[in-house]
Amino acid sequence: MSINVAVLGATGSIGRQTLEVLSAMKEYGVRPVLLACAYNSAELIKKYGDRRDITVISDRGSGIAAAAKEYVGTDLLNRAETYAGIDVVINGIGGLSGVGPTIAALKAGCKLLTANKESVVAFGKHITALKAETRGIITPLDSEHSAIFQCLLGEDTDSVSKLILTASGGALRDKKREEIAETKAADCLKHPNWSMGVKVTIDSATLMNKGLELIEARNLFGINEVDIKIHRQSVVHGAAAFKDGSLKIYASKPDMRIPIAYALSMPKRYKLPFSEEIGLEAVNGFTYTEPDTDRFPCLKLAKVAADYGTDRAGAVLTAADEAAVNAYLRDEIDFYGVSELIEKALERFATGPEIADVYQLHSITDEVKEYILESIGGGN
Amino acid sequence: MSINVAVLGATGSIGRQTLEVLSAMKEYGVRPVLLACAYNSAELIKKYGDRRDITVISDRGSGIAAAAKEYVGTDLLNRAETYAGIDVVINGIGGLSGVGPTIAALKAGCKLLTANKESVVAFGKHITALKAETRGIITPLDSEHSAIFQCLLGEDTDSVSKLILTASGGALRDKKREEIAETKAADCLKHPNWSMGVKVTIDSATLMNKGLELIEARNLFGINEVDIKIHRQSVVHGAAAFKDGSLKIYASKPDMRIPIAYALSMPKRYKLPFSEEIGLEAVNGFTYTEPDTDRFPCLKLAKVAADYGTDRAGAVLTAADEAAVNAYLRDEIDFYGVSELIEKALERFATGPEIADVYQLHSITDEVKEYILESIGGGN
Repeated sequence: MSINVAVLGATGSIGRQTLEVLSAMKEYGVRPVLLACAYNSAELIKKYGDRRDITVISDRGSGIAAAAKEYVGTDLLNRAETYAGIDVVINGIGGLSGVGPTIAALKAGCKLLTANKESVVAFGKHITALKAETRGIITPLDSEHSAIFQCLLGEDTDSVSKLILTASGGALRDKKREEIAETKAADCLKHPNWSMGVKVTIDSATLMNKGLELIEARNLFGINEVDIKIHRQSVVHGAAAFKDGSLKIYASKPDMRIPIAYALSMPKRYKLPFSEEIGLEAVNGFTYTEPDTDRFPCLKLAKVAADYGTDRAGAVLTAADEAAVNAYLRDEIDFYGVSELIEKALERFATGPEIADVYQLHSITDEVKEYILESIGGGN
Repeated sequence: MSINVAVLGATGSIGRQTLEVLSAMKEYGVRPVLLACAYNSAELIKKYGDRRDITVISDRGSGIAAAAKEYVGTDLLNRAETYAGIDVVINGIGGLSGVGPTIAALKAGCKLLTANKESVVAFGKHITALKAETRGIITPLDSEHSAIFQCLLGEDTDSVSKLILTASGGALRDKKREEIAETKAADCLKHPNWSMGVKVTIDSATLMNKGLELIEARNLFGINEVDIKIHRQSVVHGAAAFKDGSLKIYASKPDMRIPIAYALSMPKRYKLPFSEEIGLEAVNGFTYTEPDTDRFPCLKLAKVAADYGTDRAGAVLTAADEAAVNAYLRDEIDFYGVSELIEKALERFATGPEIADVYQLHSITDEVKEYILESIGGGN
């Protein structure tokens, strides 16, 4: 039996690793049939051009004539019809443009494996409702939520007292506030433990990544108590604490291919070329400490947004962070400018009517991004 | 709905803690209806004498006239009829006399919660077959196997690469071989982390406890790869490593009441007076190291017995250990005399026809115990 897989964001960090996993899992019947990316589609056509069974969708065509069917226009990904005949949709799209495909994949009745934080953080209430309505299945792909997902197998949500996410601490973990204040984006882009995209690496340095993951965990698992611990070894990815005093911890080498493979093979687990078995010696002497929200105020802001408990606050946080990080990457603001801008945006936009549909989601996020740009312009 | 529980070994360490748990879980409908012990039944009658719904079985009567029905003769526990109307049997009996009640409880169709190592180590193949035949449920009560059981929820046995049991290291963990050689049983009886019975405490000091648990884990979970790690903090109780590189770890404060309560409430978990919620900070800096089989040869002997893969070898190991530990407790042999006697017994008895039934089990264990006694007598 063959399992047909769509990989969205196929040329990004998650997408590339997913394609590696799919290639390693060929003998288990999973195969890519739809690959989508915003740009870089030539990369896909070069690799999969001779495969008649694969369709490629991108925003700009590859310009290469090849057997793989190629369509231009990623708007197609927002339509349920696009996923006809597909069993599993892997959403590795970064940013708010991942929301439309999440909705379409659920409506098409596909099993959704997602690394798109924005769908869950900025539109989580709607996605949860849609999931219930379509009886859909959403499995998290990123290591922390996959870890928690695995710790919750066979458990009753009511028995959980707290979820725990670990954070490597990012590139600036051991630096003083003054040093951090002067750190340029380029300096952040060497992350010690994980190979990730540019935006995620900055989010990891500011700890906003963990803040978004905190909201994601709340929305994915329906549990409000979420704790963050700094764990510099990046081998323990998540844990679940229970009311009876039990604690379940999940660990693996820091390799995104492990949770991606699990999401594809669960409940089974396969030994694949990148699988590296570990025992308790792999967590010997490991440390788990409190994050410092003075040096990393983004985490505090994410908790503020989380406490609103609305998609609106999640959307404002997400959009403000996206715009502020872009400005930081362009050297238009300094490190703490990111959190200052997000704080201003939350103060201005977080309170208000809840987001009713995807159009309102895009409208408020556009407004927030514009506001951030104006704030930066005004400061020059 | 009320869940009727039988507690066997009710005045022992597991039994007393079970009665505490049952009392704490009263509001959830679990209630003791049958209590059994070899002696000390006066303790039970004093406490439960006014409960008309409770039956007490012991080897010697309490001599107290009370409303609780009292029967003399623990042979009753080996009969399935004894468990009529009982939903859950908790086998907290220490030693080989726990085997008969295990069989009877499974035959009676009760859910079996067991801390009786001997049933699983010395008669495991038969118990496994009987469990399959009666479609019975066996849930481990001791912290290590409960930990592994919980790590395996929602998992496929074929996906497991290795089970891991932790050991506190016992009372002599940090002592040199020469010091250990001169240690009297009385000195061992102060165990740092757990409150246990006398025999178990000595087994913990020799690491035979872990050796028996290794065989127990193999037989309970049908997985041959079992690793032991010394973990002095006694908070991580067990783990499961998977072929895909995943590791699931279970931790809780060292309190037997936690796994007992879980076995009674699963899949739910309740906050009870002794529940103490923990997070990752509770395992901060924890260590997991290799056990030293030079100082603790019993562990090596248990692995030898395990590699036979027979109930016979498990029975010889169990009986030899019981007799040797008793001799050590009586100061008739020294610390390393225990492992020397067990080694001799294994050499002499471990090879031979597999145990066919419970009579053969008792016959071989009696023979081994007699041999140990003779060996000690001959040495005087």
